[in-house]
Amino acid sequence: MNSEQLFQQIRIKQSYLCVGLDPVREKLPAAVMSSDDHVFAFNKAIIDATAPYAVAFKPNTAFYETDGSLGWATLEKTVAYIRTKYPKMFVIADAKRGDIGNTSARYAAAFFNRLGADAVTVAPYMGADSVQPFLGFDGKWVVLLALTSNTGSADFQYIENKESLSLYKQVIQKATQWASPEQMMFVVGATHPDELGVIRQMAPEYFFLVPGVGAQGGDLDAVSNVGLNRRAGLLVNASRSILYASSGTDFAQKAAEEALMIQQQMKHQLELAKLI
Amino acid sequence: MNSEQLFQQIRIKQSYLCVGLDPVREKLPAAVMSSDDHVFAFNKAIIDATAPYAVAFKPNTAFYETDGSLGWATLEKTVAYIRTKYPKMFVIADAKRGDIGNTSARYAAAFFNRLGADAVTVAPYMGADSVQPFLGFDGKWVVLLALTSNTGSADFQYIENKESLSLYKQVIQKATQWASPEQMMFVVGATHPDELGVIRQMAPEYFFLVPGVGAQGGDLDAVSNVGLNRRAGLLVNASRSILYASSGTDFAQKAAEEALMIQQQMKHQLELAKLI
Repeated sequence: MNSEQLFQQIRIKQSYLCVGLDPVREKLPAAVMSSDDHVFAFNKAIIDATAPYAVAFKPNTAFYETDGSLGWATLEKTVAYIRTKYPKMFVIADAKRGDIGNTSARYAAAFFNRLGADAVTVAPYMGADSVQPFLGFDGKWVVLLALTSNTGSADFQYIENKESLSLYKQVIQKATQWASPEQMMFVVGATHPDELGVIRQMAPEYFFLVPGVGAQGGDLDAVSNVGLNRRAGLLVNASRSILYASSGTDFAQKAAEEALMIQQQMKHQLELAKLI
Repeated sequence: MNSEQLFQQIRIKQSYLCVGLDPVREKLPAAVMSSDDHVFAFNKAIIDATAPYAVAFKPNTAFYETDGSLGWATLEKTVAYIRTKYPKMFVIADAKRGDIGNTSARYAAAFFNRLGADAVTVAPYMGADSVQPFLGFDGKWVVLLALTSNTGSADFQYIENKESLSLYKQVIQKATQWASPEQMMFVVGATHPDELGVIRQMAPEYFFLVPGVGAQGGDLDAVSNVGLNRRAGLLVNASRSILYASSGTDFAQKAAEEALMIQQQMKHQLELAKLI
């Protein structure tokens, strides 16, 4: 999927919501426990409930790897289900991979070819040759960590070099030379709205994947104000606030309501930005 | 396994060799092709051939994830095989994970509890709360990326702050405050022997996992000269030079010969350092 197609979906859905599929076994509602694969049953219900209000789904591999190869099978079934039932949905494997070149090439094959994701999140620490193997796939995307939503982002990402340029800005600066806005997006946490505005100026055409709205406390309006560009340029993720909106039999209905509420807020922001 | 037990194995084996189990399907010898699980058959042969000369095995998850859930099942079988047949072997899951706290906790459960590895490699970019969830497991280890062996290490890891302290040194400085030498090791590439000596001074008691000997061009003697400490403190990894020493029916024999050659060099270094 290219950026124009993604923007088209954003206009059709009047939404730039990405739903994080991060299932935690202990939190699953009793309603899915009769199924053979509880996690898949849960994902399927969440996907069907929220698909009308979202343009992207983002399974985080950690929540599948806790179940080992069985969890990976659930991840594969989940992505295949989205691909088949919602072919225009953008699928991000939130894997935060990155290794030496010949190893990163294996990860790229795993997530783009084998799993069939549109995008994979990648960590920048190991530099250019750890990122480049992910770039050779037509219509596929690297989503590079720049400024993450967690408190630990302060430990290294804000370190300034002698020219007072912080590490996350250096990541943006270098990475925009490695890849075009058709190949790369950046992770910028919703918990840093001021910095998000600065990064938007450094990378005006790039999409940002913005986690941290909802359970982590980020503010959607603040993010949208400074982050929206001429093709929206934002995918804002919500996970826990949607997945666990209710633990009752109405969990999917409540997830849909939560997603709808966010979509309505996004619609308003898209109108303000004259994008719809 | 604690550091004293690991050092004991190093003295018994007269080796600090870690064998990287990074199987590439296209490179597998014809000899394993009659098996149902080619990759596992290959790993099993390599493990049995090299176990006498090694103290650690390090499967890199990328080489399994290219086969999706089936690859993960092979990874599980491989670790279980080592655990059962060679219970004193140190097993490192080379996964380079790292995410926000509640997600890193899932990775820790995946690699320590579910897979049963002794150690997992972790990327530092997301800071303290991305690393800490890996630290609460008795006898388990975080192997944190500090200075990697690839050329891309120059992109960010060498960036200096205003006090002229490079990023990889800041990672060492902070991380040694997060975790003791009983909980944490550092990845330091063999391709940077001078820097390895500096890092040894910053972290005298910590083990270093040193990739980059062999196919990547690092020099074992140079690394050992500056890296060995009073409990050895080094695990030097070799992957491709051992795994693909021969593509013939003698692949396991040639892998053993390659591992033996490295072990002999390590024995000499341990003698020079008066550790055996």
